[in-house]
Amino acid sequence: MTLLDGKQVSNDIKEEIKAEVDKMISKGERVPHLAAVLVGEDGASLTYVGSKVRACERIGFDSTLVKLPASTSEADLLKTVEGLNNNDAIDGYIVQLPLPKHIDEQKVLLAVDPDKDVDGFHPTNFGRMALDMESFIPATPYGIIELLRRNNVDTQGKHTVVIGRSHIVGRPMSILMSQKGNPGNSTVTLTHSRTQNLEAYLREADIVISALGVPEFVKADMVKDGVVIIDVGITRVPDASHPKGYVIKGDVAFDEVSKKASFITPVPGGVGPMTIAMLLKNTLLARERRSN
Amino acid sequence: MTLLDGKQVSNDIKEEIKAEVDKMISKGERVPHLAAVLVGEDGASLTYVGSKVRACERIGFDSTLVKLPASTSEADLLKTVEGLNNNDAIDGYIVQLPLPKHIDEQKVLLAVDPDKDVDGFHPTNFGRMALDMESFIPATPYGIIELLRRNNVDTQGKHTVVIGRSHIVGRPMSILMSQKGNPGNSTVTLTHSRTQNLEAYLREADIVISALGVPEFVKADMVKDGVVIIDVGITRVPDASHPKGYVIKGDVAFDEVSKKASFITPVPGGVGPMTIAMLLKNTLLARERRSN
Repeated sequence: MTLLDGKQVSNDIKEEIKAEVDKMISKGERVPHLAAVLVGEDGASLTYVGSKVRACERIGFDSTLVKLPASTSEADLLKTVEGLNNNDAIDGYIVQLPLPKHIDEQKVLLAVDPDKDVDGFHPTNFGRMALDMESFIPATPYGIIELLRRNNVDTQGKHTVVIGRSHIVGRPMSILMSQKGNPGNSTVTLTHSRTQNLEAYLREADIVISALGVPEFVKADMVKDGVVIIDVGITRVPDASHPKGYVIKGDVAFDEVSKKASFITPVPGGVGPMTIAMLLKNTLLARERRSN
Repeated sequence: MTLLDGKQVSNDIKEEIKAEVDKMISKGERVPHLAAVLVGEDGASLTYVGSKVRACERIGFDSTLVKLPASTSEADLLKTVEGLNNNDAIDGYIVQLPLPKHIDEQKVLLAVDPDKDVDGFHPTNFGRMALDMESFIPATPYGIIELLRRNNVDTQGKHTVVIGRSHIVGRPMSILMSQKGNPGNSTVTLTHSRTQNLEAYLREADIVISALGVPEFVKADMVKDGVVIIDVGITRVPDASHPKGYVIKGDVAFDEVSKKASFITPVPGGVGPMTIAMLLKNTLLARERRSN
């Protein structure tokens, strides 16, 4: 069994990006510049945005944090977005979700210039991805593809079963895994809440990508020997014995499934750490595409 | 066994559209206006475009055929496209494919205003469709969905196996069938040229959507009793006994498979006739959305 070590791979990717930034600096070129828009004071959002900004600093990107009060109107947020679209110093930006309830998230995401949409949430980027064109791939799916690629996991002609049809994980993974390419060329079955007899599909799977959010749902008796497991689930499970009062669990019962798996992502330390690395990678790509 | 009669359903849809047009006329409103751009003198393309224009006339749409010589430069074609984007009298338009080899098709399709892209080929429309937003769905997938809907075929929780991952049929069908909705909510397996043991997937399928292009590939022993068959294949097979010298065959061996199927599309007369009807439907939608 090989652990798909997202911590290690994400560090490798950040090192590679840093080397690119160092080259830009030595050539006297402008470094990539990521902006993040945060509306309100949601604790988790503050943490996420903070770690993105710090990650930028560590690899030498410029970063800008646009903090707006929770009372910001939709019209004002749209003006901020327009300002970022028109700001030549910004290569890419993200609007941290969720937004306050009085703001239409979809309207805001549609206002982001697709060429600066490093989250890959704009339909133009999603459509470009689905049509095999150059795009910004959303960070989590992009991270999974990189984890598979850098561990030389064979996906060609394999049967991949994806659990969950969300816009940010399940749907894009089902597309990426079935496209021409390496990783890719899998036969993909996309399962979801309306699927009947999910276990029958899992037992046939060479590769399982689970984004279900039910802790330890996938058990050893549901999968084949030699299965590849990508566990995107992150659930806090109360645990009095732990100083934080909880532990983080994935969708997969790691202890028993890892004994049958050929490759498996741990939780935490698997898919999670890849996300920020791929956001940085998209920002580097945005910078490079703008100079073309 | 119920025949999924595309001829009948497409006629119903055209009648419904015509009734909407009549209402517009009686209110003194502008009727929908479809334009088609044809570059060169390719025989099949002339036929296709001609039948689209005639279909417009029959239901009361305005139509414009822009015929350009095969020698038209890419730059000039892009100017034509820009002109159509800026022409307020045109609700939607198509650029008939294939284009002459000296023109970059992707560049041209990207230049079409997504709001007038009634073929649904622009990545913005494709992405909107994949993200469950209002869009223009490409005519063939849209036609299949309408065939299923109007025949009350139950897709909820069923296992749909799609053969072929093309941008215009297989990929969009895999998305539409697995989305929330009715038709929809299927567990979808997308198979393609790299799939191993395709027959094993077919034998498990409640619904088979085949866009393979191999005449009579799907045989009775490959499918379950009660299977639903959507046959998108259209291949000319030489046949000296036929006055035209060929017959049209689908991907499915109709005579034997129809005995096991609960629903099946004939070829011809199944999916094919739906295509123009859905192009007209998209043009009507384009007209209605513009007046909002």
